[in-house]
Amino acid sequence: MQVTIIGLGLIGGSVALDLRGSQFSDRLVGVEANPEHARRALERHLVDAIRPLDQALPEARLIVLAVPVDAIVKLLPTLLSRIAPDAVVLDLGSTKSMPVAAVRDHPRRGRYVALHPMAGTENSGPDAALAGLFRDHTAVVCDAEDSDNDALDIATRFLNALGMPIVRMPAEEHDRHVACLSHMPHVIAYALALSALTAERDRGLILQLAGGGFASIARTAKSSPAMWVPILLQNQAAILEALDDFLGQATVFRGAIASSNREKLRQLIQAANEIRNPLDGAIQPDRD
Amino acid sequence: MQVTIIGLGLIGGSVALDLRGSQFSDRLVGVEANPEHARRALERHLVDAIRPLDQALPEARLIVLAVPVDAIVKLLPTLLSRIAPDAVVLDLGSTKSMPVAAVRDHPRRGRYVALHPMAGTENSGPDAALAGLFRDHTAVVCDAEDSDNDALDIATRFLNALGMPIVRMPAEEHDRHVACLSHMPHVIAYALALSALTAERDRGLILQLAGGGFASIARTAKSSPAMWVPILLQNQAAILEALDDFLGQATVFRGAIASSNREKLRQLIQAANEIRNPLDGAIQPDRD
Repeated sequence: MQVTIIGLGLIGGSVALDLRGSQFSDRLVGVEANPEHARRALERHLVDAIRPLDQALPEARLIVLAVPVDAIVKLLPTLLSRIAPDAVVLDLGSTKSMPVAAVRDHPRRGRYVALHPMAGTENSGPDAALAGLFRDHTAVVCDAEDSDNDALDIATRFLNALGMPIVRMPAEEHDRHVACLSHMPHVIAYALALSALTAERDRGLILQLAGGGFASIARTAKSSPAMWVPILLQNQAAILEALDDFLGQATVFRGAIASSNREKLRQLIQAANEIRNPLDGAIQPDRD
Repeated sequence: MQVTIIGLGLIGGSVALDLRGSQFSDRLVGVEANPEHARRALERHLVDAIRPLDQALPEARLIVLAVPVDAIVKLLPTLLSRIAPDAVVLDLGSTKSMPVAAVRDHPRRGRYVALHPMAGTENSGPDAALAGLFRDHTAVVCDAEDSDNDALDIATRFLNALGMPIVRMPAEEHDRHVACLSHMPHVIAYALALSALTAERDRGLILQLAGGGFASIARTAKSSPAMWVPILLQNQAAILEALDDFLGQATVFRGAIASSNREKLRQLIQAANEIRNPLDGAIQPDRD
């Protein structure tokens, strides 16, 4: 089938690389507003052709939306109105409540499947696209009962082509989980980077001394504002709740350090070490 | 020369693996209080023999202290009093002000070199020891002017054998930098892990949804209390200062999210992205 990917950055470009190696699609068309990104996407052979949105829609069987979440919410209703009758639209954004709400009463709601592939890096643009980026990471399908069965089938085959196991959950539940496990951690990484950049005037020293946990946290702080400002605004309430909970935990820790409470610190760290079990298997051993 | 390594955990064990492959040492002796660790260290051939401290000291030319920082401060004065006249003691702890202070007026102060190799992982024990752990990471030598020249020479050859570039700085300056770039980030990682473990009762879900920054931060939260409680207590003042600065940055971020201040969020993230430059080269591209 022809797949049209809207947005050929890290996510859209990585999807293209994986679909190329699969039987899922015989033609990949890209829609990319940034001319430099469009040029690089063609040079890297991510897609067979770049087309304006108008031309790319009618002939596509599957439309994959891989743009920032504010653009997803804006585009989604128009797309649903203009695609071919049997076509399907997927979005790959990191928030799900607002896209789902934007088309809740749309007459063609069933042609849309709300997806979140839990994979990424801190880099952006078509040059950041990586083959195998999604493999063995979880994809969340939200509000599946509002999608047509054949649309869900196509979404499932698409995720199989990327090598992703699937979990289903309501959009609001998804947004609460990712607030805690992805969005709020980004805020923390940004704040840590700002704190280090303020304290350490000597940038060379940051490079030399960035061991023991700093590099692995601060790497996340390289993620772009174009992607992350809309996420922070769309998932505002859940992120604030997760952030307040984190700040509460950090304040307890601060108190234990300030009062030299050895036993309390031991208990806190031992409790935090429990994260070992859920994480093992999810991440690679790596130096820090 | 004979090298005696006190503590055969992640750090001491990794030192042993690297010295074995070098011309630096012709005999490696370990001192290890934990019988299970001692057994594993011998099984992995990390050292040629395990000896009680008393027996391991007189014949060693170089003594490497790779135990938690509270044990370093406790052992250091005794060691200096009991080593052979031309022997040298190095410690590899993550704090430097307190060890240096513990032997400031010791008649044999010159035989001690205060080191911090900026490398590690979140794992511990002899099974966590890795060949090449230190390669191309920076080693900080503190208060070098208080060490004898021949002791500094041995320390330099030791660090060359590990493949580490060297920077020198005063112990107090070192402790302020690592508070910001290593110690405080560990506190943040612990608080984040506690926050996720509290919010997410379903441990399986943490594993499935731990993408987008969480895994790379929370990995640091696996670091053990045995190593980290003493560090947090020894470098208390500098860590509290760094933590308060971080909490201030996080609060600014929180305000921008709560007030939906798109432009402020864009500026904050753009400023945080500046961490890209100091970090590039320091860390490997990696999926999160």
